[in-house]
Amino acid sequence: MISSPATNDSDPGTLANFSDVTEAGERLRGIVRRTPLLESPLLNERLGGRVLLKAECLQITGSFKLRGAYNRISRIPEPDRKAGVIAYSSGNHAQGVAMAARMLGIRATIIMPADAPRMKIDNTRALGADVLLYDRKKERREDIGAAYLREHGGTLVRPYDDRYVIAGQGSAGLEILDQAAGIGATAIDQLIAPCGGGGLLAGLSLVCAARSPETRVYGAEPAGFDDLARSLRDGTKRSNEQIDGSICDAIMTPTTGVLTYPLLARHVTGAFAVSEEEVTEAMRTAFEYFKIVVEPGGAVALAAVLSGQCDPRDRTTVIVASGGNCDAENFAGMTGGKP
Amino acid sequence: MISSPATNDSDPGTLANFSDVTEAGERLRGIVRRTPLLESPLLNERLGGRVLLKAECLQITGSFKLRGAYNRISRIPEPDRKAGVIAYSSGNHAQGVAMAARMLGIRATIIMPADAPRMKIDNTRALGADVLLYDRKKERREDIGAAYLREHGGTLVRPYDDRYVIAGQGSAGLEILDQAAGIGATAIDQLIAPCGGGGLLAGLSLVCAARSPETRVYGAEPAGFDDLARSLRDGTKRSNEQIDGSICDAIMTPTTGVLTYPLLARHVTGAFAVSEEEVTEAMRTAFEYFKIVVEPGGAVALAAVLSGQCDPRDRTTVIVASGGNCDAENFAGMTGGKP
Repeated sequence: MISSPATNDSDPGTLANFSDVTEAGERLRGIVRRTPLLESPLLNERLGGRVLLKAECLQITGSFKLRGAYNRISRIPEPDRKAGVIAYSSGNHAQGVAMAARMLGIRATIIMPADAPRMKIDNTRALGADVLLYDRKKERREDIGAAYLREHGGTLVRPYDDRYVIAGQGSAGLEILDQAAGIGATAIDQLIAPCGGGGLLAGLSLVCAARSPETRVYGAEPAGFDDLARSLRDGTKRSNEQIDGSICDAIMTPTTGVLTYPLLARHVTGAFAVSEEEVTEAMRTAFEYFKIVVEPGGAVALAAVLSGQCDPRDRTTVIVASGGNCDAENFAGMTGGKP
Repeated sequence: MISSPATNDSDPGTLANFSDVTEAGERLRGIVRRTPLLESPLLNERLGGRVLLKAECLQITGSFKLRGAYNRISRIPEPDRKAGVIAYSSGNHAQGVAMAARMLGIRATIIMPADAPRMKIDNTRALGADVLLYDRKKERREDIGAAYLREHGGTLVRPYDDRYVIAGQGSAGLEILDQAAGIGATAIDQLIAPCGGGGLLAGLSLVCAARSPETRVYGAEPAGFDDLARSLRDGTKRSNEQIDGSICDAIMTPTTGVLTYPLLARHVTGAFAVSEEEVTEAMRTAFEYFKIVVEPGGAVALAAVLSGQCDPRDRTTVIVASGGNCDAENFAGMTGGKP
């Protein structure tokens, strides 16, 4: 376990590069789970192509977020650790930060919207973090974070706009290439991942650009939160008008980040916006074909493929299922399960 | 891929031993999925012990059954392959046989009860097998199998009473020991797995006896189908009176096998019978803590631990979640999801 701060650090506010990702991969070895790359012969047949699903819902804390959180927090210099870390998150980054902080013996305070899924709030607390709830319609989490830092100090762990968070998320991409080669998929035609702030997608895009440049990389977003699709189409960074109203709580982000967008603009081909019906159908498909629980925000990439927006026929497609923090009642309600 | 028949075969009707399991492990390498051994820090905390869950629901075809089916079918001598294979199964062995036969280019005919879960029948057909349905209350599958063999020939692939099926299922145990050691769990105090006919449990018990003799091995059964618990307690093989009426369709077996019971009697410490409520609570726990779909029959081992019958406190427990073939509607209905 490499938990001591790195020397010769670059600033977390600079752009991530591929060697940051490989370094993160080393740092996270034995810390995060190497989640399986799943494949369903029946789904392949139905879709007419080979689909490989990276099940980050099976990651410790139920989403990929532990990768970036641990990579970032483990680099905090020793003297700064005593003051703890602080983060704001709708729930998955919250759990990732809480878990990474616990592994490293550092105190964590998490600012979460009061309307975040109950399971995410409960789990964050159960992992030992202090949780501060706020009203998403009346308060800005950045303001609460700033006020907290002014009063208590500590290190802010951003959910995506951080070089080492992006690099940590990208470590999933190193695993994907290695696992795909291990099952004979040496050429990946396209890779598609959910995009909110863009940390995961940016990290993955660095890996593909360096190690699999023939792979087209796409983002997937909920309808109404398609800022990346519009940004890439228009060639300039766009934002969403909505701040809530999607079942995809994990990726209801106003826009991509200052440190993610430049990487996305350079390495990502396009993005697909999917409807709520397409998302819940993808959740059901993941359940029945892959036997995994994928939360709404984690299912948008699969939804883009199942809906035909991203064509899987006669090619190899990697889909990232980024999280699975959804309780059984809500899942049944959304997928139309009748008790 | 080792798909050619082995030479110097022993008879599939003799008792399996540990070297059969290690040989199966070699034969299945690159064929079956090395399913993850999952762990939830939050569940460990709740239970007061370390619980490692072998997610065989993530195996190709959604259950461990591909292991034994492939190991057995790949040993059929070339001249006998043309006549195809035949199997009877409530659904998981059916899919395992259908998939293994397809991988090996052999025709498969499967005899399934008409009341088997629709998903299992559909998937077996989708994998290319011919499916013959029968009425479980009026006909005996063994009679239908015998009539079919008399008319068409072919090789019968038994669901558990076969040396190479047992050895194949045991290959999951080799992975468990290796994966547990990889995450620092070098001493496993107890291992608990579902038991219907006993093929999986017998195979796992051979591995523990040879490689981890300090591990206590337990079976788990649905209430009303607790023949193994009674057999081990009484020191003689017992049967169940019921032949249906459990939600655990995968393990509603009249009794353990002629080739499994001797191994179980020698290597298994005891068995736990769990109620339907305990099973559905385990399905929900697997969903929420591990983000996996476990069918009722696959959840009995977890149910035995959650219900406290198998005490997880202050020790390391390995639980096998043996299958996940349950559609979203039935899952929601059983676990009480409210749409």
